[in-house]
Amino acid sequence: MAERKKIIIDTDPGIDDAMAIFLALNSPEVEVIGLTTIYGNVYTTLATRNALHLLEIAERIDIPVAEGSHVTITKGTKLRIADFVHGTDGLGNQNFPPPKGKPIDLSAADFLIEQANLYPGKVTVVALGPLTNIALAIQSDPAFVKNIGQIVLLGGAFAVNGNVNPAAEANIFGDPEAADIVFTSGADVLAVGINVTHQVVLTDADRDKLAESNGKFAQYLNKILDVYFSYHRDAYSTKGVYLHDPTALLAAVNPSLITCTEGAVRVQTTGITKGLTLFYNKQKRFEEVTEWSDKPSVKVAVTVDASTVVKLVMERLMHS
Amino acid sequence: MAERKKIIIDTDPGIDDAMAIFLALNSPEVEVIGLTTIYGNVYTTLATRNALHLLEIAERIDIPVAEGSHVTITKGTKLRIADFVHGTDGLGNQNFPPPKGKPIDLSAADFLIEQANLYPGKVTVVALGPLTNIALAIQSDPAFVKNIGQIVLLGGAFAVNGNVNPAAEANIFGDPEAADIVFTSGADVLAVGINVTHQVVLTDADRDKLAESNGKFAQYLNKILDVYFSYHRDAYSTKGVYLHDPTALLAAVNPSLITCTEGAVRVQTTGITKGLTLFYNKQKRFEEVTEWSDKPSVKVAVTVDASTVVKLVMERLMHS
Repeated sequence: MAERKKIIIDTDPGIDDAMAIFLALNSPEVEVIGLTTIYGNVYTTLATRNALHLLEIAERIDIPVAEGSHVTITKGTKLRIADFVHGTDGLGNQNFPPPKGKPIDLSAADFLIEQANLYPGKVTVVALGPLTNIALAIQSDPAFVKNIGQIVLLGGAFAVNGNVNPAAEANIFGDPEAADIVFTSGADVLAVGINVTHQVVLTDADRDKLAESNGKFAQYLNKILDVYFSYHRDAYSTKGVYLHDPTALLAAVNPSLITCTEGAVRVQTTGITKGLTLFYNKQKRFEEVTEWSDKPSVKVAVTVDASTVVKLVMERLMHS
Repeated sequence: MAERKKIIIDTDPGIDDAMAIFLALNSPEVEVIGLTTIYGNVYTTLATRNALHLLEIAERIDIPVAEGSHVTITKGTKLRIADFVHGTDGLGNQNFPPPKGKPIDLSAADFLIEQANLYPGKVTVVALGPLTNIALAIQSDPAFVKNIGQIVLLGGAFAVNGNVNPAAEANIFGDPEAADIVFTSGADVLAVGINVTHQVVLTDADRDKLAESNGKFAQYLNKILDVYFSYHRDAYSTKGVYLHDPTALLAAVNPSLITCTEGAVRVQTTGITKGLTLFYNKQKRFEEVTEWSDKPSVKVAVTVDASTVVKLVMERLMHS
């Protein structure tokens, strides 16, 4: 059997984060070596509590949780918490009891640096929230971009409207300067934006199947999914929910599920399009030097095998 | 015979502006009732000179030329003159003699207001440069947006890279605040961006046909096109040139040549994506009020019947 890919999930759980974490734990191709936490769907303190809680549900308290930043790198940014998508507790307003476990003493950024250093080129970070922790690791350790294997991030709205406003996707909007640091760092970055994840829908019928399953993850998720389905009906008039985080997770597990393009990505950090991700395909030679010139290329997902992603999500979440 | 559509061409000639002006003069569906001038491909003074010169070449000195703004509405913007695309004289470095005619005493904005007032709902402005004059007319006369029939503008890069830099198209970049004023004015606006005009290419072979034609416009254009073809080879590695201005002109003459989508467009006016046009399709209901909320819809071209556009351009420019 091939060596399992080591992954660290940087997460703000979050209903679809919970799905992605359970999916990772039931994916034989990968070994989850840690969770790091960040604000986004909830505040960081609650993200840490939820991460510990989810690992207890999964009976995987062997996996360390490192708490991440409570504030943005972008100056003067008020945190935008998406409690209207995930519930005030981030997990569908279920009033789960507090977890027994505690986070480790390392910060998220220091844990990322430590693990990248320990297994150079072998660790994939799957970043499911604003990119503050990853940017802090990049700023703190010049070797991090070489030591880290790949950064697969759920973020951006490439050539489509955003989900916070017409210009910006929530994770990039959450800390635009952090995102710009990650995109221009020279690390091996794969961005999975909502232009891709809006193609991957878990339908009402799929949810009914989850409800009928005896799998513990399926049972747990069925309880917390109500809020997430309600939000999608109100905001998008859809019968179903977008599988943002599970799609990014599976893109890390099996890159053949998506196709990519490569080019330079910069993030607008001010004004009405703050948080906009602008991809440059490097096709035109511009007369002037631009803010994209000489910036390293990253991979940006453009298509996804949506039916296989949904199939894998269902199979692996129904599996006990 | 149906009443001919009255059009005013706001222009910064410019090689493809010259094509569009000649095309309009040979289009029986429209009556050109004036040219207004603007900086862009050249400074405004030279734009006025070139507009008068082109009307003398066409033997149409009955058409008035009104000189437009020499400066942007956007504060602190240095004019960006595209002499590397069109030659330092804007017309392929041909050293044409100065025109005999003079512009009228009205400014471009005042001429636009006067004509819109004279023929309410009947005048189409075809704007081929930065949108300063149109924005000044909107600011100066509250009735202008109702009196003007339609504003068909060549501008923007919708969901594609720009041509000044990865974010911005030249006409919008030239005066972003003016463009934002036009897009949010409530006027009947149709934007034809480079996402559409990059589909409309005049090839080397087409140019050879122009060269063989006895038509005076074809002969004139054949002389000035060298610089424009060279630029396209260098910047885009293409054998041919984009027909930006002629496409916008024909979209005004015959709207069935394009298909459109409708929504709100805002322009980013600061930062690295200054000049970016961001279209909101009004599909998602956002949690927060956004800078696009309650803004009027405009039309944005999404497809073009490119082969018919090229055919019309060739036929009408070869016609004497």
